[in-house]
Amino acid sequence: MVTITRAASDQVARDTLRHLEDAWNAGDGAAFGSCYAENATFVTIRGDYVVGRAAIADGHAAIFATTHAGSVNRMELLGCRELGDGVIVAVSRNTLAAPQGPLQGTHAALSTSVLVRAGGQWRVAATHNTLVGAL
Amino acid sequence: MVTITRAASDQVARDTLRHLEDAWNAGDGAAFGSCYAENATFVTIRGDYVVGRAAIADGHAAIFATTHAGSVNRMELLGCRELGDGVIVAVSRNTLAAPQGPLQGTHAALSTSVLVRAGGQWRVAATHNTLVGAL
Repeated sequence: MVTITRAASDQVARDTLRHLEDAWNAGDGAAFGSCYAENATFVTIRGDYVVGRAAIADGHAAIFATTHAGSVNRMELLGCRELGDGVIVAVSRNTLAAPQGPLQGTHAALSTSVLVRAGGQWRVAATHNTLVGAL
Repeated sequence: MVTITRAASDQVARDTLRHLEDAWNAGDGAAFGSCYAENATFVTIRGDYVVGRAAIADGHAAIFATTHAGSVNRMELLGCRELGDGVIVAVSRNTLAAPQGPLQGTHAALSTSVLVRAGGQWRVAATHNTLVGAL
């Protein structure tokens, strides 16, 4: 059941990625977490399973303050589509430039995120990340 | 908008994981691919972005015939929820025992999969995989 145009779902995905990117590049874990639904899930590049907006915010605040301090992330939409009324799946390629830490240098990751509309707002219900070329 | 019970969505997720697991353990790429929607996406543990059921089937047939020949995968549901009418997101922990190849031994991966109901059947619209503990 498609309820919005392809262009509209692309825009929702791009807006969400921009919010995430801006929060990352500001080193703002709370702003990053605010993009997520209360009961969202997040699987990190290390295969950590994080459940809930607060834990997603706290986990990102922690890496922004330590291993990923000063890093810059650019998120490019590779593809997205509406799966049902108010549910969009989006895949992005994220390019991270880290001045220090275990990922010092430039690395690419792929993310799949599921976006859900509730009360007129779109939030991320699930994100799953994989580092490209690490294996 | 929740349209099925929690127990029902759990069952859909477990049934899907069992089909994927059975196809994997039979080394049957076509059966693995048949769990996916025509326009599904799949991000592998290496960060490869695979688009479409045919490519997902062919990619799995290729690894079942080579690097992952004889491997056994067990998929355990960690959590799932309905995101909207006919859309479920499920996270699983997959334990792979590979007798040979680059992943020889036993390894765990986390998967996030989005399941969509169409024509009374549930298909996977997107899967994203990450190897646990590789980084």
